[in-house]
This record gives sequence, structure tokens and C-alpha cells, in this order.
Amino acid sequence: MNYCYLNGRYVTKVKTKISVEDRGFNFSDSVYELIQFRNNTLYNYSKHLTRLSKSLEEVSIANPFKNFNSLFLIIKYLIRMNKYNSGYIYIQISRGEAARNHLFPTNIKPNVVILLYPLRRDMDVSKGVAVKTGADIRWKKCNIKSTSLLANVLGKQFAKENGVYEIWQLNEKYEVTEGTTSNSFIVCNENIIYTHPKNEYILGGVTRDTVIEIAKVNGLKISETPFNLKHIEKCKEAFLTSTTVGVLPVTIINKRLVSDGDIGGITKHLMSLYNNHLTQQLNQI
Amino acid sequence: MNYCYLNGRYVTKVKTKISVEDRGFNFSDSVYELIQFRNNTLYNYSKHLTRLSKSLEEVSIANPFKNFNSLFLIIKYLIRMNKYNSGYIYIQISRGEAARNHLFPTNIKPNVVILLYPLRRDMDVSKGVAVKTGADIRWKKCNIKSTSLLANVLGKQFAKENGVYEIWQLNEKYEVTEGTTSNSFIVCNENIIYTHPKNEYILGGVTRDTVIEIAKVNGLKISETPFNLKHIEKCKEAFLTSTTVGVLPVTIINKRLVSDGDIGGITKHLMSLYNNHLTQQLNQI
Repeated sequence: MNYCYLNGRYVTKVKTKISVEDRGFNFSDSVYELIQFRNNTLYNYSKHLTRLSKSLEEVSIANPFKNFNSLFLIIKYLIRMNKYNSGYIYIQISRGEAARNHLFPTNIKPNVVILLYPLRRDMDVSKGVAVKTGADIRWKKCNIKSTSLLANVLGKQFAKENGVYEIWQLNEKYEVTEGTTSNSFIVCNENIIYTHPKNEYILGGVTRDTVIEIAKVNGLKISETPFNLKHIEKCKEAFLTSTTVGVLPVTIINKRLVSDGDIGGITKHLMSLYNNHLTQQLNQI
Repeated sequence: MNYCYLNGRYVTKVKTKISVEDRGFNFSDSVYELIQFRNNTLYNYSKHLTRLSKSLEEVSIANPFKNFNSLFLIIKYLIRMNKYNSGYIYIQISRGEAARNHLFPTNIKPNVVILLYPLRRDMDVSKGVAVKTGADIRWKKCNIKSTSLLANVLGKQFAKENGVYEIWQLNEKYEVTEGTTSNSFIVCNENIIYTHPKNEYILGGVTRDTVIEIAKVNGLKISETPFNLKHIEKCKEAFLTSTTVGVLPVTIINKRLVSDGDIGGITKHLMSLYNNHLTQQLNQI
């Protein structure tokens, strides 16, 4: 039995239903977060909360939690109910329900849904993954973690149908913004790691931010500068990051092997540093 | 009591609920149509069905209706149950429900929701409306009538907060693509009507297409060519179209009166022609 949270109630997933006039359903007028957990530790929790607050603010949805302590208690209770040792917590907050009209309704109460998922290990990461570049067709507010995700869904499906893990999305200058579900990194000459800067064209993932921090603390050279197709051709290493997979080596880009298809030294180093970072958070709360 | 349709059942609106794992809710992985009706006549019905089929095809959602006759019977029954003389029919089809994952799930059944709304007359149209231009921040598949509408919602709300009816969205070349909930038209020298051509940057509304057809049949000069801010400054008339409002005169653009704020002759003519076109459809089916 899988239990979920919906507006103050803990219910079995099959019974967790929302109105067909929920604005998340009609307009993708909602934001979300996906947080990895192990035991009672919510990895990178404060970063996720900061982003959730920002997303809510960007779309002018009132934060339904007076403070995030109550959210933490709800999540802990849900983890206990579900008897999960590890997995992902999915939090979605919509503007609420009202007769369909684009304009924000007045006196509306957000709908809060929290779902739990088991850890996903749908691939053998030890060998790295292949990616392909493709046009970035998303809107220009990618910094908001909203459920306006059809472009990402179509992109990820396109990746699968082309036998790759991810599409690295290109802007008009043929620079990589990010993947459809992850952030993109390459390592170039002088071992400098490049990734797109945080602005309205990328989501600015929590794992991305954490990896950048860890890299800096550990003396790695990292530059938040866009890289393009030409840089990719010459890169020595590549990887992607997301909450779901952490740091994942990319060994093939557009059917071309990156450094003979081996996982690069800096990527390996970052994978290890990131795993240590998560482990250190265990039992800290 | 308001009755809705959900996957083969006719239920009261308060009881019409969908799973929190519906992909429309989680990913805006769904498409929709809004159709105006009067008595049993569904205005521009075949055009709406054609677009619905196209939207479903674009996102690879299997059409849940073997043929659209069954949909017509459902709608007619729903109109009768609700005892509405006129109003709007809202049809939303999502890919269905599954544990959250961007990739299309296999063996999934679309969720079909049909809602009825009364006619909306939330403004005095006789004097025309004001619009303002603003950046088009939407994705690059606007031709799909999907529920990935957060950009439109934020745009429409921005319009309201700025005291105008609509935002006319501008691309990088400062050309108007369309409004957030309507299509944009201006009338220039030699009485040529301009509107953005139908491509991936606009929705290509049913009312828009109908108005273009009517204009051509009635000997008006219409050109599907983008117009920009400079053209707007010199235009003689302006109007917008949507299912909700039909042909609506625009008398103020960016705080400037269009032709002294009077409704233009060509606009008036098209309003009348469009109303006649709808009236002619009454009782035809």
C-alpha cells in the first residue's frame, strides 16, 4: 500500500484524487520539487526548499506552509507510513481549483500533493550514458520548477526513441542550455569544467549547484559559461547531474565517443565527492 | 448541479476527480479544446475536431474516440443534463496516469474530461478593448493546444494587472505572434488585414481560421504576414479573435488610441459577418 499526502490528509494513492478544475491539471499552474531521501535524511533539503519558495514566488502562489518545519514533519510521517528506507519525495503545489479562466482566481487555496517513489536505478551507470543534442524548444522561464513540462516530456521521449539517455538542448547559438531532466557539464583543456550559467534558460538544479560548490571547495576549476557544439567536439570529459541520478558520466555525445568512451578522471572524482557529500548528510538531522 | 463527463461516466462536478498521478497534472501532458455552443449547435465543430486530432497526434496520445460521433453524442447528452442553452464545452484529454516518469508509459489509457461552462460576458465589448505588447516567452510548439499554459496564464494575469484585456506577444524581431488567449489582427493601408501566419509560433485558433475564410469569401484583403511594432503605430484598425469572444475590437494598443478610439469599419464588418456565420450554423446539425 502506498500512502500519499493531500491537503492535510494521508490517503492511499488510489484514493488520492484532485478536482478536474485544479489549475495544475488545466493550466500547469503549479510547481514541484523532487527530493531524494535515505532513512530520515532528505538530501540537499534546504536547497530544495529555497528553490520551492522561489518557484512559488515567481508564479505568485501563496506558500501553503507557514514554515517548512511542518512540511518536514509531514514528509517524515509519510516515509514512516510507507516503510521506505530510501527513495524520492515528490511535492507538487498547484494554485488550487476554480472554474476555468486563465486569470488568477481570488480566494483560492493551493492544493498540496506529496508522493513517495522508490529509488530508481533504471540503468547501469558504471559505463556512462550517451546523449544527443537537439533544439531547446522550451519556454523562457525555465528557472521556475513548474509542471509546464510538455517540452521536457517530448524531449526525453525523443531521447529514448533515439537510443540515448538524454537530449542536450541547444539555444539559437548552438550552446547547450541543459538536458530535459538534468544539467550538462563538459571538461575541456586545462581541466576546466563548463556548464551553462544559472538564468532563465535553465532550471538550475539542486544537484548542479551542489556539484559546483563541491568542485570549488575541492580545488577543481569550474566555469559557469555556456559551451557549444565546437567545445563538445574537443571536450575531454562530460557528465550530467540530477536529483534522480546524482553525477552521471556521459561517454557518447552525438554518436561520438568522449575520450575513447572511458569515464574521465574528473568525473570519477566528482562522483565520489558527491556521494560523500550525501553520506555526510545522513543522520545529521 | 453541474454535470461533467469523465472516462465514460457522467458525474457531478464536485465528484469529478482524477488521480494525482495523471500526467496532465504532473507534466501538462494533455491537450484540450474549448467549443462554444448554442442549443445543440456546436459552433465550428469540425474545425475544433480537426485541431484536437492534430494536437493528439503531435504529442502521440492515442485518440480515445474511435470516431467523433461518439464524442458528439456525449456532448449533446451533457448539454441536456445541464440544461444549458448556450455556453462552452471544455474537452481535456491527458495521456493517462502512471508513476511519475517523463517517458511515455506503456499500456496507458488517456483520461477524458468534459466540462460545461456558461457563456462568458465579462466585459462590455461594444467599445473595444485595450492591449499591451510584451515578450513572447512561450515554448516553440504553440501550434499544439496543450495544457502547458503557464506562460499564457502569467501573461494574461500581467495584462489584467496592467489594466488591459490582452498581451500581444512579441518575438525577437518585435513582431506580434498572438495574444495569450487570442489571435491578433491589424488593418493597415489599402485596408489590408494582417495577422501572423500559422506555424509553430501561434496556436492557429479556430476563430482565427474562420475569420480569415470569411474575410476572403467576402472580398476583404487579408494577408498572413507578421506585423511589428512599427506597423502597429500606423495601423488603422485592430482586433483580436478567440472562441470566447469571437471578433473583439482593439481600440488601444500600448496606451495609444487606434484611429481615435473608434471601432473601425472593417472590424465592424467582420464582427457582423462572423456572427452571421455562427447563426447560420444553428440548427444545421
